[in-house]
Amino acid sequence: MINVLYIIPLVGALALLYTFGTSRWVVKQDAGDDNMKELAGYIAKGAMAFLKAEWRILSIFVVLAAALLAWAGTTVPDSSPVIAIAFCIGAVLSATAGYIGMNIATKANVRTTQAARTSLAKALKVSFTGGTVMGMGVAGLAILGLGGLFIVFYQLFVPAGSVITGPEMKRAIEVLAGFSLGAESIALFARVGGGIYTKAADVGADLVGKVEAGIPEDDVRNPATIADNVGDNVGDVAGMGADLFGSYVATILATMVLGQEIDASKDNFGGLSPIILPMFIAGLGLIFSIVGSWFVKITKETDSVQKALNMGNWSSIIMTAIAAYFAVKILLPADMIHRGVQFTSMDVYYSIITGLVVGTLMSMITEYYTAMGKRPVLSIIKQSGTGHATNIIGGLSVGMESTVAPILVLAFGIVTSYYFAGLYGVSIAAAGMMATTAMQLSIDAFGPIADNAGGIAEMSRLPEEVRGRTDNLDAVGNTTAATGKGFAIASAALTSLALFAAFVGVAGITSIDIYHADVLAGLFIGGMIPFIFSSLCIAAVGRAAMDMVTEVRRQFREIPGIMEYKAKPEYEKCVAISTKASIREMIAPGAIALLVPVIVGFTFGPEVLGGLLAGVTVSGVLMGIFQSNAGGAWDNAKKSFEKGVEINGEKFFKKSEPHKASVTGDTVGDPFKDTSGPSMNILIKLMSIVSLVIAPHIGIKNYKPLLNVSGQKHIATPASTQITTPANTFVLTAKK
Amino acid sequence: MINVLYIIPLVGALALLYTFGTSRWVVKQDAGDDNMKELAGYIAKGAMAFLKAEWRILSIFVVLAAALLAWAGTTVPDSSPVIAIAFCIGAVLSATAGYIGMNIATKANVRTTQAARTSLAKALKVSFTGGTVMGMGVAGLAILGLGGLFIVFYQLFVPAGSVITGPEMKRAIEVLAGFSLGAESIALFARVGGGIYTKAADVGADLVGKVEAGIPEDDVRNPATIADNVGDNVGDVAGMGADLFGSYVATILATMVLGQEIDASKDNFGGLSPIILPMFIAGLGLIFSIVGSWFVKITKETDSVQKALNMGNWSSIIMTAIAAYFAVKILLPADMIHRGVQFTSMDVYYSIITGLVVGTLMSMITEYYTAMGKRPVLSIIKQSGTGHATNIIGGLSVGMESTVAPILVLAFGIVTSYYFAGLYGVSIAAAGMMATTAMQLSIDAFGPIADNAGGIAEMSRLPEEVRGRTDNLDAVGNTTAATGKGFAIASAALTSLALFAAFVGVAGITSIDIYHADVLAGLFIGGMIPFIFSSLCIAAVGRAAMDMVTEVRRQFREIPGIMEYKAKPEYEKCVAISTKASIREMIAPGAIALLVPVIVGFTFGPEVLGGLLAGVTVSGVLMGIFQSNAGGAWDNAKKSFEKGVEINGEKFFKKSEPHKASVTGDTVGDPFKDTSGPSMNILIKLMSIVSLVIAPHIGIKNYKPLLNVSGQKHIATPASTQITTPANTFVLTAKK
Repeated sequence: MINVLYIIPLVGALALLYTFGTSRWVVKQDAGDDNMKELAGYIAKGAMAFLKAEWRILSIFVVLAAALLAWAGTTVPDSSPVIAIAFCIGAVLSATAGYIGMNIATKANVRTTQAARTSLAKALKVSFTGGTVMGMGVAGLAILGLGGLFIVFYQLFVPAGSVITGPEMKRAIEVLAGFSLGAESIALFARVGGGIYTKAADVGADLVGKVEAGIPEDDVRNPATIADNVGDNVGDVAGMGADLFGSYVATILATMVLGQEIDASKDNFGGLSPIILPMFIAGLGLIFSIVGSWFVKITKETDSVQKALNMGNWSSIIMTAIAAYFAVKILLPADMIHRGVQFTSMDVYYSIITGLVVGTLMSMITEYYTAMGKRPVLSIIKQSGTGHATNIIGGLSVGMESTVAPILVLAFGIVTSYYFAGLYGVSIAAAGMMATTAMQLSIDAFGPIADNAGGIAEMSRLPEEVRGRTDNLDAVGNTTAATGKGFAIASAALTSLALFAAFVGVAGITSIDIYHADVLAGLFIGGMIPFIFSSLCIAAVGRAAMDMVTEVRRQFREIPGIMEYKAKPEYEKCVAISTKASIREMIAPGAIALLVPVIVGFTFGPEVLGGLLAGVTVSGVLMGIFQSNAGGAWDNAKKSFEKGVEINGEKFFKKSEPHKASVTGDTVGDPFKDTSGPSMNILIKLMSIVSLVIAPHIGIKNYKPLLNVSGQKHIATPASTQITTPANTFVLTAKK
Repeated sequence: MINVLYIIPLVGALALLYTFGTSRWVVKQDAGDDNMKELAGYIAKGAMAFLKAEWRILSIFVVLAAALLAWAGTTVPDSSPVIAIAFCIGAVLSATAGYIGMNIATKANVRTTQAARTSLAKALKVSFTGGTVMGMGVAGLAILGLGGLFIVFYQLFVPAGSVITGPEMKRAIEVLAGFSLGAESIALFARVGGGIYTKAADVGADLVGKVEAGIPEDDVRNPATIADNVGDNVGDVAGMGADLFGSYVATILATMVLGQEIDASKDNFGGLSPIILPMFIAGLGLIFSIVGSWFVKITKETDSVQKALNMGNWSSIIMTAIAAYFAVKILLPADMIHRGVQFTSMDVYYSIITGLVVGTLMSMITEYYTAMGKRPVLSIIKQSGTGHATNIIGGLSVGMESTVAPILVLAFGIVTSYYFAGLYGVSIAAAGMMATTAMQLSIDAFGPIADNAGGIAEMSRLPEEVRGRTDNLDAVGNTTAATGKGFAIASAALTSLALFAAFVGVAGITSIDIYHADVLAGLFIGGMIPFIFSSLCIAAVGRAAMDMVTEVRRQFREIPGIMEYKAKPEYEKCVAISTKASIREMIAPGAIALLVPVIVGFTFGPEVLGGLLAGVTVSGVLMGIFQSNAGGAWDNAKKSFEKGVEINGEKFFKKSEPHKASVTGDTVGDPFKDTSGPSMNILIKLMSIVSLVIAPHIGIKNYKPLLNVSGQKHIATPASTQITTPANTFVLTAKK
């Protein structure tokens, strides 16, 4: 039985080894001439400066939080001070995931530019291989970390002969939740900080460079251009790496928590199968992501890059889906019961397939709402014809409309996966959806590498055809970025639901009844959190962009000869502004996400906290979809003008009035789609994980809330409200 | 006992008599010269044309819905075909409320202009008296209708000797809910249709008139100017009248439903007191609103109009609060129990006071976020300095931020009023907040009258000082419009919660547990409704505005001499465009609000519908606050430029670049604050009322849902899930 357990970290370690090999291949590629190397050097230096500044702040946070967790771990028997160690490892690995990605991206970018001097096929190979280093690296770290720690905690907390559904195993997994908390906290700061960084630089560079000085994007004369390119790396690469690392871990962990409640003693693995299944599926997904990555290649200049990526993506998904069937059949017992719901191993498999279907549909819907030439983007283009205001109204309207189909798909996914295998089904559906994270992330990371490669080509004033090739890659990258976000928000919603269920179990409550006044108040406050969080993020971008504008204007004014390429702008000053602003501004949103559940949980108890989590999840998913899709649609409406668009029979191009209106929409959409929108999925998961970690402390076994308003005046107390049996025996209140 | 009941409709009838008197006074005032009369005539004619077109469509809807209700009323014993009659009366009275307001507004507008030629005091008197005709008229109709029908249904359905908490009385009030359904349905169509009308005309008139042709607002040469002024009447007056009529009725009704569950047989009114208390409080509020209106006057040109209005508002609130004490003490028994919560009559009074405090705080917060010279508007002004995009980012950020304080206040209000008197307390808090609706509406209706008066002054090219006086009134009207919206959304939230509780009681379920997968799916779908509803509203405004732009451009092009005042524009064509567009576009959002609860309720059962309602309420309140406040803040940021603003030490005025950016924000904000934003509060109430009306049909006593996904695989069924005792004996699950 133990042998099976060791397979998991082994797969992770092998993936890391593979990553190391491909990474060396990328580094060995030609990095171009001295000018290109210099520019790439600036970007790498700026990116590292940001990471260092960020880590300095975060290390203080990690130490404080770890101390608190260690202390808290001693106060209740369901936890342990060891959780602090798990937390630190999670935090460090999450930061490492971001670092790996950023390190390779800042090397792959210039090498992609150089490769683009030869052929599109070569450029794709370099940039996508750069992406796979990140994708496989992140997934490998996650599986190694989770699988390894699980073995350690299993040995540490579960004496031989204990039943798996007993309190010892529950405690082991509760301690493992610290790993996820560490990973997700760092992810939030990285995503928000990186998002503010990249958009402050982007918006600032555009407002002065493009609009005022009339120089193109990525022009070497723009003092903010290096900061802008650094931003692609710290936001879209490092931020996203930490983000997906966190999501991946959270999804697996949530399923493990629920799996522990299932009596699977009839399996051949000592009853461990429902717990280790999600890790196994992740391992399979990782293996087949590596295999799938071999299919991503083109041979001719005219081959479709999108098709090559789809080939890799689909092959990895299909292989994983097939392999998952055998994993489920081999691992799980024939019949199981989870919280009163009875299901078979095949039901679990159907849930996994549901997750894959939901993920695919979400990506397709997102693509529809943000792709060029489709009705939503065309409507925004048309509304650009009557000015800035109607462009904005059009984009907001498209963004709001775009919530409908994803929510229906999500509701279908929740109900269907629950139908098959209860809450464990919902959770394993999320795990199935996230299984090929390695491939998803490889494709996602390829985008900013291509974007940077184009920037370096422009800054180095390389021939038109080079820029053409990088633009081709970049355009595909924009689409994959949008669909990646749809996928991320869907998985976050299912994961949050699973974490929510895990929280309910650990806290020992039997229902979260919104018909109770205080729970409903919690729901309202929870719903509000994504609004204030988004407000803080986009306001931060606005403020930092204004600082950037002021600095760029100052350099143009005070440094003579910039415009004639005679003097070099002070790139590092702009880099410093973005760095400082993003570090400063990430603190408030991060604090909200971490502190609100703690305050509400300890003051009002677990049921009100449950209401809060439901509010955060629903509102966060909606705001995430709304903002990401509105931003994506605005972006592509603007891009459509580059090739020319027709409005009411008249043809418009760049620099026309409708194009200017579309630039306004794109600028508004920037913080929507790259700062606040994608942070939503981390926000909802992080608040759920914080709740799960504090659940033993605020659970009905150990704690009485400071305020329990709605309970005070009740005269009737049905016997069924106090439950102190272990969580796995809880029974979901059945319907009529 | 019966005598007491008759007091209620009597108060309503007396208020209507009073309204008739003041209306005659207004009509008797001088309507100015022939030119002014002609312009006012256009406006009145256009407004009436809209109402007629709207009524034509709505009468079809009312007949169909009434037939359906009559049929459905025969199918279950808890309802009755009589509900169709209640529905029709509610619909007709709601339409009448809108008509009364619009009729007087289109007369008071030109008379205010004429009065402004004499003095500010006179102009305020005419415009505010016009407002009171609407305020007192609407409240009078509501109380007469509700109080009268209650007596009829009481006699019809409750045989002598029945207990008040029994099924007969329950049925009488369930039938009365039809009245509220009729009122609120018409309110939704009126608000949405009127909102689309007014903003299509406003945006269209501005885009061509102000921006392209460079003529001022309300210039007689602009073909869309009459449509714009008609819009003030059909949207801000008729729409708002129907809206507040519906809210007022819904709030009182919800409290009556819950009151019926309270055993008050120890009172001196045959146990009716908890049911009739909300109507009594409304009656007191109406009387003291009339008294308070006498305090609204100024004597000198330099007197503050805002202070005069505040004087009226505060005096009516304070008098009502004092009188409510005696009403509670005289009517209610000393002790009551509602759904397991025990409370005294004083507890009920404290709940009423809680409602008044919440309403006041909400108004103050709204004012802060939308007032000139305060931090939020100043931040938008500053962000206008760097262009259109940063202005939009600033406004969106302010709007999202502005949800925080209101939600905290609301959560406080829910928990506190519940603490005092359970769900009956929450409901009576809403009733207390709405008691002075007559005064609130008088103040609200004064705004568009003053706005129209200014328009007529401008179109008639009257002297500067006349326009100065109407501008003074108009500016105050903008502030009262914003605070009125804060108040409306707060009362809607509490009312929805009360309706929600009423629904739970009638449907016979004991909990709405978001921990059930299908309920959570309902919560997600509910949360999405306000997004698609808003999207439809703002997209409709965008489309209709583009039609308007095309028509205005055509007239400028094809009718020679317009610009030289030699030819008259074809005003009626623009009026027709707005009318047609608004009637066409109001159907889809209205259908969503009416059909979704029916579909979900019958397919998935009452608990999932409960989850849906919670989602709609939370998301609707958030979107309502966000949109209304963002729109208000953008509006006042733009207005600030008229007097000149300072950005980073530099002074900017009208026509400067930052001012143009602020106009963009204002235009985006228009549909936010006058179409989709204020519709949110009707949406959430209407969906709750629809659910309440169908509750007997989908309740666990009479119906098995078509799909009950999460129930199918449960193996354990605790005994406590099936409850068939009357609703008043339900016991709220007590907390730990």
